[in-house]
Amino acid sequence: MTQVQIESYLSGRWQAGTGPGAVLVNPATEAPVASASTVGLDFGNALAFARTTGGAELRALTFAQRGAVLERMSGALHAAREGLIEAQLVNGGCTRGDAKFDVDGAIGVLYHYAELGKSLGDRRLLADGEGIQLGRSPRFWGQHVYVPRRGVAVLINAFNFPAWGFAEKAACALLAGMPVITKPATSTALTAYLATKVLVDAGLPPGILSFVGGGSGDLLDHLQGQDILSFTGSANTGHKLRSHRRVVEASVPVNVEADSLNAAVLGPDVELGSDTMQLFLRDLSREITQKTGQKCTAVRRIFVPAERVDDVVAELSARFSETVIGDPALKEVRMGPLASADQLRDVRAGVERLQKDATVVYGDPQAKLAPLGVEPGRGYFFPVLLLKAKNSAHSPEVHSHEVFGPVATVLPYSGKAEEAAELVALGGGGLVASIFSDDRDFTETATLGIAPFHGRVYLGSAKVLEHAMGPGLVLPQTIHGGPGRAGGGEELGGLRGVEHFMQRTAIQGSRPIVEHLTGTKPT
Amino acid sequence: MTQVQIESYLSGRWQAGTGPGAVLVNPATEAPVASASTVGLDFGNALAFARTTGGAELRALTFAQRGAVLERMSGALHAAREGLIEAQLVNGGCTRGDAKFDVDGAIGVLYHYAELGKSLGDRRLLADGEGIQLGRSPRFWGQHVYVPRRGVAVLINAFNFPAWGFAEKAACALLAGMPVITKPATSTALTAYLATKVLVDAGLPPGILSFVGGGSGDLLDHLQGQDILSFTGSANTGHKLRSHRRVVEASVPVNVEADSLNAAVLGPDVELGSDTMQLFLRDLSREITQKTGQKCTAVRRIFVPAERVDDVVAELSARFSETVIGDPALKEVRMGPLASADQLRDVRAGVERLQKDATVVYGDPQAKLAPLGVEPGRGYFFPVLLLKAKNSAHSPEVHSHEVFGPVATVLPYSGKAEEAAELVALGGGGLVASIFSDDRDFTETATLGIAPFHGRVYLGSAKVLEHAMGPGLVLPQTIHGGPGRAGGGEELGGLRGVEHFMQRTAIQGSRPIVEHLTGTKPT
Repeated sequence: MTQVQIESYLSGRWQAGTGPGAVLVNPATEAPVASASTVGLDFGNALAFARTTGGAELRALTFAQRGAVLERMSGALHAAREGLIEAQLVNGGCTRGDAKFDVDGAIGVLYHYAELGKSLGDRRLLADGEGIQLGRSPRFWGQHVYVPRRGVAVLINAFNFPAWGFAEKAACALLAGMPVITKPATSTALTAYLATKVLVDAGLPPGILSFVGGGSGDLLDHLQGQDILSFTGSANTGHKLRSHRRVVEASVPVNVEADSLNAAVLGPDVELGSDTMQLFLRDLSREITQKTGQKCTAVRRIFVPAERVDDVVAELSARFSETVIGDPALKEVRMGPLASADQLRDVRAGVERLQKDATVVYGDPQAKLAPLGVEPGRGYFFPVLLLKAKNSAHSPEVHSHEVFGPVATVLPYSGKAEEAAELVALGGGGLVASIFSDDRDFTETATLGIAPFHGRVYLGSAKVLEHAMGPGLVLPQTIHGGPGRAGGGEELGGLRGVEHFMQRTAIQGSRPIVEHLTGTKPT
Repeated sequence: MTQVQIESYLSGRWQAGTGPGAVLVNPATEAPVASASTVGLDFGNALAFARTTGGAELRALTFAQRGAVLERMSGALHAAREGLIEAQLVNGGCTRGDAKFDVDGAIGVLYHYAELGKSLGDRRLLADGEGIQLGRSPRFWGQHVYVPRRGVAVLINAFNFPAWGFAEKAACALLAGMPVITKPATSTALTAYLATKVLVDAGLPPGILSFVGGGSGDLLDHLQGQDILSFTGSANTGHKLRSHRRVVEASVPVNVEADSLNAAVLGPDVELGSDTMQLFLRDLSREITQKTGQKCTAVRRIFVPAERVDDVVAELSARFSETVIGDPALKEVRMGPLASADQLRDVRAGVERLQKDATVVYGDPQAKLAPLGVEPGRGYFFPVLLLKAKNSAHSPEVHSHEVFGPVATVLPYSGKAEEAAELVALGGGGLVASIFSDDRDFTETATLGIAPFHGRVYLGSAKVLEHAMGPGLVLPQTIHGGPGRAGGGEELGGLRGVEHFMQRTAIQGSRPIVEHLTGTKPT
C-alpha cells in the first residue's frame, strides 16, 4: 500500500492540513502507511456548518427517513467491507478476525438503528411516558417529549475500534436528529478515514457527517450549549474533556467511556469439565487475546474460588499456548501486535505495576518474542500474560490500573457471592462484569451486589452455552458504559442511546393542544 | 426570636462547629437571627456513615417502605408548618404567601413521592423497558434494571427555597434508595435547620438524612464514584462544582440547576381584555414579584408583539403599582426584601448591566424606598422594575444576565412564531418558557422551536384560564431543569427524577434466570 494522506471532511468538503502531519504505521512492521494533519483547518466553521446545514437537514427528516440514511450508510460500509478490513491489518495490528469484529460491528449497529428508525415511523419527536393530569381537572395536561438538540455531536473515538466506535455513536446521534463530527484516534485513523470516504461518496445529506483526520486542535473551544461531546478512551483524557472550559461553562453534556477493570467471577459450583466451565474458559481466553486485549470490555480481573485457581490457570494457559503471535496479515496468526509504540510502552509499564500485587503465572513479560512473519526486533508485540494476585482484597494496582493488552489477573476468593461482589466493587465501577454459575442463589446475590457498579452484567451458565456471545461483545440492544472509573457514561441500549442526543422537555397546557402537538392524542 | 445556633446533623448526631460562625439576619431589619459554623466537623466520616449505615437501611426497604418514610417526613413537616413559615418571615424576607409556597411545596413533593413509592410496591429494583431477545434464540435474554447507587447523594440547595429545595431532591434520592446529606445556602439556613430537626425527631432510619448547617468545608473532597452531587444555585458555583477534582476523577454525576433567562411569549392573536391576556398578565405579575423575584423559574424576558408593547407595559405597571413593599411579617405587605445584602448588591449591579440594552419603563432603580414597617435605610429592599429592550435581537445582557430580583425586560418582536423562538433561544437554555396564545399554529411552531432549549414549556390559553398554575410552579409530575445556561440538569418528573439516583444496568443471561432476578417473569 502506498502511503495515504489522510484528509478531513469539514464544512462539506475534503481538506488537507498543512505540514508533514502525524505518521501512521503498521504496528507489526513499523512501516509508515499514512500521514494526517489538521493544522490550519477551521474547526469553528466546521461546527457551525454542521449545526446549521446538517442540523436542518436531519430535523427535516422523520425517524423513518433518518433510519433510511443509516441503512444507506450500513450498506455502503458493507460494500466496502474488504477494504476496511485490509486497512486494519496494516494500520491496527488486527487479525482478520479482529478487523471483522470491528467492521461488521459498525455495519451491524448502523443497521440496528436503521431498523429502529423505521419502527418509529413518520414522527420527528418522541413521546416519553404517558400524558399526565396536572391539576384537579384534566384540562391542564402534561406530556414529556424528546426533541433533537440543536447542536452538533462531537464524537471522539478510541484507537481500538475505528469503525464500530464511530458507528455506534453516530447511529444514535443521527437517528436523534443531531449532525456529527467524528474524530478517530490518529494512530489508527486509516480505517475511519476510508469509511468516511465511502459514506461521503454514498451521498449523505449535506452537513450531517464531518470527519477530523488528525489532531483536534481548537475543536472543543467552539462548543456551545446545544452540542454534545461523546468520548471513548483513557480516563486521563476523559478528565481533561470533562473539565474543559467550554464544556463546563456551556453545560455541554459529556459522555465518557473510559478505563474499566472488567471482572469475571467463577461460581463455586462450576466443576472442571462442566458446560459452564467450558463457557467460562472459552469466553475468557477469547476476551483476553481478541484484538490483543485492546478491548474496553476485555476481562482484566478473574475471580476464582481458591481451590480451583490452579485448575483454571492450567486450563487458560493451555489455551493461551496455542495463540500464534505475528503479522496479522498472515492467516495462521491468531494475535497481532499492540496498536502503537505508545501502547506497548504503557502495557509494559502497567505490567510492572500489576507485579507489585501479583505474580506472573503464565507468559513472560521479558520474553524475546519471535512473531511469525516479522523481521526480528520489529513491531509492537507483547505476549499473553496471566498473573495471580497475592492478596485479592489488598491488590490496589490490580483493582485500579487497567493494562490495555493481553493481560489478566486471577484473584482467588472464598466462593461466597457476597465476597465476590465486594472484591469486584474494588474496581471502582466498570463496563461489564460476568458471572459464571449454575447456582441461582449465588448468581442472584452476586448480580445484585455487582450491578450498581456496572452498566452490564453478563451471566454465563450451562443453559446459554450455545447462545451467549461473551461479555466482550457490545450489543446495540443493551446499554454500554459504566459508573465511576468507567467514566459514568451510557451508550446504545436501543432507544436509550438515541435519547441521550435529545432534549427531554415537559409540555404543559390545554390537553387537546398538548396531545396534538406531541402526537399523543388517543385514537 | 432569640438567636439560634444552627448545628449540623452528621454521623447520626447533632454537632456544633467551632468559632463564631456566619451570622444569619432578618433581611427586612438586618437584625441577627442565627449563627452557623461547621468548622472542625468531620465530613469524611459523615459521608462514610451515610453510605454504610444509611445506604444499608434504605436498600433493605422496598419502594413502598421508602414511600412510607417519605410520608412520615411529609407529615412531620406538615405538623411543624407554622414554625417553618415563621422562620422564613424572619430569615428569608418572605411574605407569608412566599413562605407557604416553599413549605407547602416541600410537604407536597414528599407526599407525591410517598404515593409513587407505594405504587411501586414490594420491589427494590425497577425494570426499565421490556425484556429483549439478544440472539437468534430467545434463550439468551436481556433486561435493563435500575438499582440504587451505593453512595450518598450530596444535595446543595439555593437560598430561595430552603424547604422545597431540600425536599424535591431528597424525596427522589431517598425513594431511589440513596441516603442524603443536604447543605442549604447558609444565609437562609434557619428553615432547613428547623425542618431537619423536625425530621430527625420524627425518627427516620439512621444515616439516611444528614445536614450541613454552614459552610461545606472539605465535604466534596470526600466524594466517591457511587455518590451523586446535585446542586441548585448560581452558574458560577455550578462551574466550580462540575470541575471539582473529585467530581471529575470519580465521574460523580452532577446535576446542576443554575441561571435561567426564562421567557414568556405573547402570541399576536391575544387581544387586550381577552381571557388569555388576563392569564398572561396574572401569571407575569405574580412570577415577577413572588418571592421578590427570587425564583429560578421567574420570568425574566417578556416577548410581546411590537404593537402591543405599550399596552402590556401599562397593564403590568398598574399591577406592580399595587405591590406593597415592606416587612413581610406585616399582613399588608405583598413583597419583602431580597434575601441578603449580597443579593441586593448583585441585583443592583445586574440592573446596570441590563440598562446597557434596555430602558426602565416602570419603577426606579435609584428610588428611595420607604418599606412598610421598616426603619428607614434598613433592609435589603429593591423595587419592582420593568425594562424595555432597545433592540430585541441585540441585547446581549438581557439574554445572558439573570438578575435575581423583581426585574423583567419586555422585548418587542414581530409576532411571528419563528422569530419568537429564535429570540427565546438567545437565552442559551432555560428552565421554562411560556407561550400565551389561542392560535394553534403559532403555539405549535413556537413550542417546537423553543423546546430544545428548555426543560419545560408552559402553554397559557383561554381554555386553561381557571386551571393553569403559572410557569413558575414546579410540579413533581413534570421535569425541572434545562440545558445550557440552566445547567444541563433534570429533576423530578415522577419516576424520572428517581432514576437519576440509580444505576441503569443491563442484565444478560439465560431468560428464566434474568426474569427471576429482575422480577420481570410474565405472569
